Amino acid sequence: MAADGMKDMLGRIGLTPVARARSILFQQLADIPGKTERCALPDALDRLLSCNLISPENLPNHPRSTMDGFAVRAADTFGASSSMPCYLEIDGEVAMGQMPTGEVLQGKCFRIATGGLLPKGSDAVVMFEHTIPVDGKMLEVVKSVGVGVNLIDCGEDIRKNSPALPQGHLLRPQDLGLLAGLGISEVEVYERPKVGILSTGDEIVPWAESPPPGKIRDINSITLSALCKRLGAQVTDYGIVTDSEDTFFSTLEQATQENNVVLFSGGSSVGMRDLGERVIEKMGNPGILVHGVALKPGKPIIIGLSHGTAIFGLPGHPVSAMVCFELFVDPALRLLSGIPDPEKTLKASVTAILDRNINSAAGRLDLVRVQLQEQANGLPLAVPVLGKSGSISTLSRAHGYFFIDEASQGLTKDTNVQIHLLL
Amino acid sequence: MAADGMKDMLGRIGLTPVARARSILFQQLADIPGKTERCALPDALDRLLSCNLISPENLPNHPRSTMDGFAVRAADTFGASSSMPCYLEIDGEVAMGQMPTGEVLQGKCFRIATGGLLPKGSDAVVMFEHTIPVDGKMLEVVKSVGVGVNLIDCGEDIRKNSPALPQGHLLRPQDLGLLAGLGISEVEVYERPKVGILSTGDEIVPWAESPPPGKIRDINSITLSALCKRLGAQVTDYGIVTDSEDTFFSTLEQATQENNVVLFSGGSSVGMRDLGERVIEKMGNPGILVHGVALKPGKPIIIGLSHGTAIFGLPGHPVSAMVCFELFVDPALRLLSGIPDPEKTLKASVTAILDRNINSAAGRLDLVRVQLQEQANGLPLAVPVLGKSGSISTLSRAHGYFFIDEASQGLTKDTNVQIHLLL
Repeated sequence: MAADGMKDMLGRIGLTPVARARSILFQQLADIPGKTERCALPDALDRLLSCNLISPENLPNHPRSTMDGFAVRAADTFGASSSMPCYLEIDGEVAMGQMPTGEVLQGKCFRIATGGLLPKGSDAVVMFEHTIPVDGKMLEVVKSVGVGVNLIDCGEDIRKNSPALPQGHLLRPQDLGLLAGLGISEVEVYERPKVGILSTGDEIVPWAESPPPGKIRDINSITLSALCKRLGAQVTDYGIVTDSEDTFFSTLEQATQENNVVLFSGGSSVGMRDLGERVIEKMGNPGILVHGVALKPGKPIIIGLSHGTAIFGLPGHPVSAMVCFELFVDPALRLLSGIPDPEKTLKASVTAILDRNINSAAGRLDLVRVQLQEQANGLPLAVPVLGKSGSISTLSRAHGYFFIDEASQGLTKDTNVQIHLLL
Repeated sequence: MAADGMKDMLGRIGLTPVARARSILFQQLADIPGKTERCALPDALDRLLSCNLISPENLPNHPRSTMDGFAVRAADTFGASSSMPCYLEIDGEVAMGQMPTGEVLQGKCFRIATGGLLPKGSDAVVMFEHTIPVDGKMLEVVKSVGVGVNLIDCGEDIRKNSPALPQGHLLRPQDLGLLAGLGISEVEVYERPKVGILSTGDEIVPWAESPPPGKIRDINSITLSALCKRLGAQVTDYGIVTDSEDTFFSTLEQATQENNVVLFSGGSSVGMRDLGERVIEKMGNPGILVHGVALKPGKPIIIGLSHGTAIFGLPGHPVSAMVCFELFVDPALRLLSGIPDPEKTLKASVTAILDRNINSAAGRLDLVRVQLQEQANGLPLAVPVLGKSGSISTLSRAHGYFFIDEASQGLTKDTNVQIHLLL
């Protein structure tokens, strides 16, 4: 399979538009069947359901009072008001946590607390506040109630055999609560994607080491690893690979066999890029999908697929690597986690006012890092963080980013921009 | 210390406005000194720095090329263009990952790849694309470069002894990258708050058990625990406490000693609320801060403080409990995690169009759960999820919520509402 983009007469590959590169990638990944596993309920937070869940029972399984008061036959209170109260005999009491005994007969009522089960014969609850005790036995009711008032009916929360949660649903805290309420102690979820990370380049040493003269610490591995972990992925670090094609290929092959996604980054020289291209091509099945996108920063990304594992050759510059992660790896990981349409993922964003003119080349998607400055009145100011894509501190100072699309040659001061927050 | 809110003639406590209840709580918590601990860098993701970090070195510590090309003296290229190129002698090459040897003399240049260290004498890099090799020795340069072009200077990313990250900063993936680049392998962060959770009520059984007739499964513990875990808290479950005042008090006392925050929920009857009030009051130092807020759902919340531990008596109805968590416990945990102004926390939200009229009582903050429905054009529709506050499924079906404030008696169809997303 040929990679997207054509080589020009100098052998350089044309740049693929970002939207097209994403669509090529997502189409390939959508065909990969998601693996599933069983997971105990308390461990299922933020996992995605891999099947439809049907309620095995009614919740609640008996009508319960939602107020402190008196269980009554609603018809007995018909027309009651403070000027014309009705009178009911207190004939019993519902003990909390126990099945009520006895039956509420016509003209009678049972004392009941919030959460108490409605006794036989009753079909509504009069709030304590709408009653006046006459003596130990007799109650004055100053407000009428309709059938079903102040109670939650059997199956009203969720009915037996009805859909509880759909396939693909992200399990949030309240969803665990619903499943706990139904007694579902284990759920079938999609496996968390496995990600292998390697860094390349003869100039890189592990960040925890003191670099000898001429070398620099690896910045990308820890950043990419943290980005993956935030998405729930299981990360394996394959360390730093030198510029030898054999070592690179054998490490990449192993990582590809052991993971759903492999990220390599580092070596951003033309030589290293060529090497990255060669090893993905050699992996085959199908090999390279995209090489180079119309994006700044992030142009030299290589996207490949081999035996069902997505391989991303990310640019070496830390800003470029993180931008490529946001646009390609993040949605790929969501897709592989079981989220059907990762492009629709709602991320935190705010509207802000651009505080200066920003130029951009047409035909290229630009991502501009910004700091947000609150203003006394109105929207915050978006102040572009200028700096090279090799400068990690520009990302550390940034609160978020916005895009300038391919059709635009820039934005003018005071334009409203939608800022994607880097929380 | 007297709790906020006054008892009326019937002995009922007046309701505190939500904003006032929050401000009372936050003021108390702001005085509690945050504990700190040292944390290895890879474990520091999403933790908050407890001190200012100063850069111990320059990043990078030597000027490096950001392009593949030739290291030159910028002055040598002055005026060069394709119609009037300049010629430089290729006098050496920078090996990747090694200190360059030799010096770039006037009229000469060194071959260099992206990431290579600038050799002595050179002050700029000419991109490969702007050169034409004449022979193995001589290079034609068709574009002039200024000093500093196509390189990242020593300390340009971050300068030695300058502020790297401020106290209170949340460590995001890119921040770990910055610190890794500086060789900072351990950081001082605020301790993760400890939260103890207990459920109360004779009608509650642990969710994993099959409830005997009259009892129901505990829904709140697993939901509250998951909400706390998402905020990075360390959660201990103290199980279910029966309605005995002695057991309740001794369990609450133990949980208060062992945690920064204690949540109890369940028993929503007047009797249980009174019991909750009594045990917090008995704990003292200072005891109850707020009892009952002008909020729907969530009115019966009790907020206390004892020996520096915040105690929240949450309503038993799952929806009310979660609403109170969002408005009170969530910001309290953020504050205790080291976030200075949790009310400014940016959460994911979208603007939507209300699809029906919604009534609300004046003088009370209403929280309305909604489902979002995408529309072909324009903003999504916000469809209120109706249902009782005892119905956990209404939260499971909700995509988010909006507020109707105290001054309003409702909102009309087609009003724009800001939806806080329940992601």
